Amino acid sequence: MTLTSEDALARDWAALRSRQPLVLCITNRVTTQRVADTLLAAGASPVMADHPDEIAGMLALADALYLNAGLHQTQGAAFAAVRAALSATPRPTVLDPVGAGATDFRTGAIRDLLTLPLSAVRGNASEIRALAGVEGQTRGVDSAHGTGEALEAARALARETGFTVAVSGERDLIVAGDGAGSLREVQVPGGHPWLTRITGSGCALGALVAAFCAVTSPFGAAVSAHRAFAEAAGVASECPGPGTFSVRFLDRLGTAHA
Amino acid sequence: MTLTSEDALARDWAALRSRQPLVLCITNRVTTQRVADTLLAAGASPVMADHPDEIAGMLALADALYLNAGLHQTQGAAFAAVRAALSATPRPTVLDPVGAGATDFRTGAIRDLLTLPLSAVRGNASEIRALAGVEGQTRGVDSAHGTGEALEAARALARETGFTVAVSGERDLIVAGDGAGSLREVQVPGGHPWLTRITGSGCALGALVAAFCAVTSPFGAAVSAHRAFAEAAGVASECPGPGTFSVRFLDRLGTAHA
Amino acid sequence: MTLTSEDALARDWAALRSRQPLVLCITNRVTTQRVADTLLAAGASPVMADHPDEIAGMLALADALYLNAGLHQTQGAAFAAVRAALSATPRPTVLDPVGAGATDFRTGAIRDLLTLPLSAVRGNASEIRALAGVEGQTRGVDSAHGTGEALEAARALARETGFTVAVSGERDLIVAGDGAGSLREVQVPGGHPWLTRITGSGCALGALVAAFCAVTSPFGAAVSAHRAFAEAAGVASECPGPGTFSVRFLDRLGTAHA
Repeated sequence: MTLTSEDALARDWAALRSRQPLVLCITNRVTTQRVADTLLAAGASPVMADHPDEIAGMLALADALYLNAGLHQTQGAAFAAVRAALSATPRPTVLDPVGAGATDFRTGAIRDLLTLPLSAVRGNASEIRALAGVEGQTRGVDSAHGTGEALEAARALARETGFTVAVSGERDLIVAGDGAGSLREVQVPGGHPWLTRITGSGCALGALVAAFCAVTSPFGAAVSAHRAFAEAAGVASECPGPGTFSVRFLDRLGTAHA
Repeated sequence: MTLTSEDALARDWAALRSRQPLVLCITNRVTTQRVADTLLAAGASPVMADHPDEIAGMLALADALYLNAGLHQTQGAAFAAVRAALSATPRPTVLDPVGAGATDFRTGAIRDLLTLPLSAVRGNASEIRALAGVEGQTRGVDSAHGTGEALEAARALARETGFTVAVSGERDLIVAGDGAGSLREVQVPGGHPWLTRITGSGCALGALVAAFCAVTSPFGAAVSAHRAFAEAAGVASECPGPGTFSVRFLDRLGTAHA
Repeated sequence: MTLTSEDALARDWAALRSRQPLVLCITNRVTTQRVADTLLAAGASPVMADHPDEIAGMLALADALYLNAGLHQTQGAAFAAVRAALSATPRPTVLDPVGAGATDFRTGAIRDLLTLPLSAVRGNASEIRALAGVEGQTRGVDSAHGTGEALEAARALARETGFTVAVSGERDLIVAGDGAGSLREVQVPGGHPWLTRITGSGCALGALVAAFCAVTSPFGAAVSAHRAFAEAAGVASECPGPGTFSVRFLDRLGTAHA
C-alpha cells in the first residue's frame, strides 16, 4: 500500500476549485445542510432536486451525482428516476449506503442500488461488510466495526462490482481494480473521533468524493476526498468540543490549498 | 419541590456515555441536524429512519424512541407504523408535541399520539396547556405562556396519562406520578433566552430526554436532560450572539461530565 | 437611484423585534435550519408547517408567508393549499424562485406561482432572468449571471406583475412600481462572497424579506432585509472561513440594532 503524494491532492483541489462542479445530490432528510455546506465550502455547487420529473433535467446539467440511501418515503420514486436518467445521461456517481446492514429492508434496497452504473461506494466498515454479504449488523447508521474488519469485504465488493470502494473510519481504506485483474489499495490515516460526534460527516465525505469524481478518476477522487477530510479534521481537532470542531472543519475545507 | 443532586446527573451522564444508546427519531423536517448533532455530542447514536416498512426493524435495534410531531405530509404513515411496532417491541418513548394548540388539525393529531404507550411528554408551556385541554392558543411553534401558567396543566396531564410531563421554558418543570397516587415535581432553573433564538432547541431537549430514558427512569431522564441543557446553556450564554451560542452549547454538551 | 437612510433600517429593525412576526414558511428540504435560525436570530418566529390540511389554519395565525420553490415531491400539494388559503386569508407573501431557469419543469412550476397574490419575489440574477423570460440558464441553484445582467429583467418583471422584485448578488437590486406608472429602484452594496459559500443564504434572505413585510411595505421590507444582510455579512467577513462566517453572521443579525 502506498500513500498518494501531496501533489495529487493539490492538483485535485485546484481542479475542483477551478471547475466548481455541479453535484446533484439525492439524499436523506437529516444531513442535507451539512452536505451542502461542505460542498460549497470545498468550492463545488450542490443541487438537491429529487422530484422524479426533474431528475433527468438536473442530471443533464450536473457534473457528478451523489446518491445517499436515506430511504425516506419519497426516495424510492427518486431512485427509479435516477436509474432511467443515468442510462440516458451517464455521470460519475457515488453511492453512500447509509445504514446498510441495520435492517433487512434497508440492506435489500441498497443492494438494488448496486446495479446502477456506479463509480464509487463510500461507507463505514459495517455498511461495506453488509454490502459484501458478511455476517454482522450495523448499529443504526453508525459503524460497529473497525476499518480493518472491512478489508476483505471491501476487496470482495471491489472485485465483484468493479467500483472503487472506500471504507471510512479511524483510518480510511480505498480499494479499486487496477484494470489488470489486481487491486489497488490506499490507506489514509487520521479520521478524527470528533468526526463521529457530528451529524453527517460521512455523508459530506461521500458527496466530496462525488465532487472530486468530476475532475479525476473515481479511485483518485476517493483518495483525495478522504485525504482532504483527514487533513481538515486534523487541523480542526484542536478545539473544545464538537460544535467548534464542525465550524473549524468547514473553515479549513473552505481554505485548504486555496 | 426538590432539586435532584449533582450526583444523579453525573451518574446519568456516565451511563449515557457508556451505553451510547441508539435513539430512533421520527421527527420533523426542520430541526433534524440540530437534534442529531445534540444526540451525537451527548454520546448517543441517533437514527432517523421513518419509512413505514423499516420502523419495526429499526425499533428492534433501538434503545429509545423519540417522536416529534412535525406533521409533515408523510409522517402520518410513519406514526401508524410506530403504533404497530411499539405494541410488538416496547421501548422508552418520548413525545414532543410540537405546536400543539396552534391549529385544530395539529392539536387533534397530537392528542391521538397520547394513546401510544409513552414514557414522557416534553413541550413548552403552550403545548402542554393545549394537551391538557386548557383554553388558549400556541403561537406557531413558540410558547405564548410562561412555565408557571402550565403548572396545573402539567399536573392534570401527568395524572390523566401516567406519563412524566416536562414543561420547558425560562424555568423547567417536570411532573410525574410517584406510584402511590401523588405527584413528584422538580423544577430546574436556568433555561437561557438564547435557547429560544436557535432552531430546534426544544426538539433537541426532547431527544435528549429519550436518550436518558435508555439509562434511567422517565422521570429521572427528564430531570437529567433538562439539568444538562440548563447547565450547558449557562456556560454557553457568555457569547456575542445566537450563532456562537449554539456552537458553545454543543461544545459543552459534548464534554460535560466527560 | 437612492439609498435608504440608516433611519429606515433602524426603524424596521425596531418594529420587527417588537412585533416578532410569525412567518409561515413553505420551503425546501435543504436549508430549513439556516432559514429558521436566521429568522429566530432576527427576532421573528418561523413555523414550517406544510401539511395541506394545516396550511389555512397556520396562515390565519401568521403575519407573513414565505414560499421557497424547493419543488420536492410533496410540495405541489402544499402550494395548492397555499393558493386556496391566501384567497381566504391574504398575507404579505414572498416567493423565492429557487433554481428557476435550471430545468423546464422547475421554470414552469415557478411561473405558475407568479399567479399567486405575491408581495415580492427575491432571487439571484439567473433566476430573475428566467422568470422574465430572458434566454440563458441557471446553473443548478447558483447564479450564472451578475446582478447587472438582471437589471432589465427585474424591471420587466416588476412592471408585469406589480410585485417588488429583488435581485441578490455581489450587489443587490430592488425594483418596484411607485404606483404612478414609474419604477423605484434601490441598489444595496456589499453582498460578500462568503455568502455564496454557505448553504441557504439566499433562502434566509428571502425569509427575512417576508419577516420585514409584516412591519413595512414590500419595497421597504426588501431594502431593509438586503441592507441588514449586507451589514451583517460585512461584519462577519473578517473570518478564517465559511464555518466561522456563518456563526458570526448569525451573531451579528441577532444583535444588530438591538
